[in-house]
Amino acid sequence: MSDATKDIEHLIELLAKLPGLGPRSARRAVLHLIKKRSLHLIPLADALHRVGTTARECLNCGNIGTTDICDICESEKRATGELCVVEDVADLWAMERAGVFKGRYHVLGGTLSALDAVGPEELRIPKLIDRIKSEQVSEVILALGATIDGQTTAHYIADQLPDITVTSLAQGVPVGGELDYLDDGTITAALKARRSL
Amino acid sequence: MSDATKDIEHLIELLAKLPGLGPRSARRAVLHLIKKRSLHLIPLADALHRVGTTARECLNCGNIGTTDICDICESEKRATGELCVVEDVADLWAMERAGVFKGRYHVLGGTLSALDAVGPEELRIPKLIDRIKSEQVSEVILALGATIDGQTTAHYIADQLPDITVTSLAQGVPVGGELDYLDDGTITAALKARRSL
Repeated sequence: MSDATKDIEHLIELLAKLPGLGPRSARRAVLHLIKKRSLHLIPLADALHRVGTTARECLNCGNIGTTDICDICESEKRATGELCVVEDVADLWAMERAGVFKGRYHVLGGTLSALDAVGPEELRIPKLIDRIKSEQVSEVILALGATIDGQTTAHYIADQLPDITVTSLAQGVPVGGELDYLDDGTITAALKARRSL
Repeated sequence: MSDATKDIEHLIELLAKLPGLGPRSARRAVLHLIKKRSLHLIPLADALHRVGTTARECLNCGNIGTTDICDICESEKRATGELCVVEDVADLWAMERAGVFKGRYHVLGGTLSALDAVGPEELRIPKLIDRIKSEQVSEVILALGATIDGQTTAHYIADQLPDITVTSLAQGVPVGGELDYLDDGTITAALKARRSL
């Protein structure tokens, strides 16, 4: 096996470890990249290198940026007193894409899990309690997943914060969703939380 | 939007263009990479860079290697007189993984297609005819897909080579395949090509 074949095999192995890709799709991706070298492979290598050298976690909220304190934490405009607690940076990005929340975030880095032995100290929960003491927070909005672990985490956090308004995202029928395709739990939640028109 | 966010968005866009990935899975992949920076992101950037600078197409057969003529074309051991014609480098790799073919390859770079206006000149068919004249080829094995375009290409190549043995891969029941799950065409082909035990 020549050096190039080894290099290509190594690249396939690395790509195959990405979530959502396997060995077969990684091979297809590598062949595509080699065929589109200047258009796709070189820019991708450069972009990875740049992100690898600049990206870091915000020391305050856990968001990803280039500085020790991220843009959202730095921005005075975002000091609305509302603090949105999310599991992961991906959830923060999803909230930002929706573009409707104007406050600041706190990324937990996961959920409490008895099975995986994840306790409050493994998450950014002590830091959250510190922030609520030091920043002027009027409301904590829990935007955690509607899973058992997500809801356990939500209740744990709410218990830790007796002196502050703690809310959570509404559960119900997704916009554009058809009842026929919804699970029983969602329909039950939507019915319980029904509103007068 | 800060520079890092722009860099990350750019990286997501590039990854999302890979076959098998979309914007959502690219975002997940990028977050995973940023979290595993030294273990995964940096090695991936390096591997891409190496493949980008070294990989090139073999001038003889179209395989991918580091030199103008690939290892298989260079190897005297592979001069068995058998030449296996495949559509794509991925197919050559699949044949090599099976490890049963000991001859050389010729990568067409696609199939003839009336719809996509791909003629013999767009593929490596003239080069194939040159090779059969200059190398000592005793048999051409067509390992093309069992699609309409693949079979059209196979018949076209067979017509161009009247003075040489041209064979093609057998069609039939895949090893481990259950009849119940096979399509009618495969069952018909397997029945027509039945063998005495």
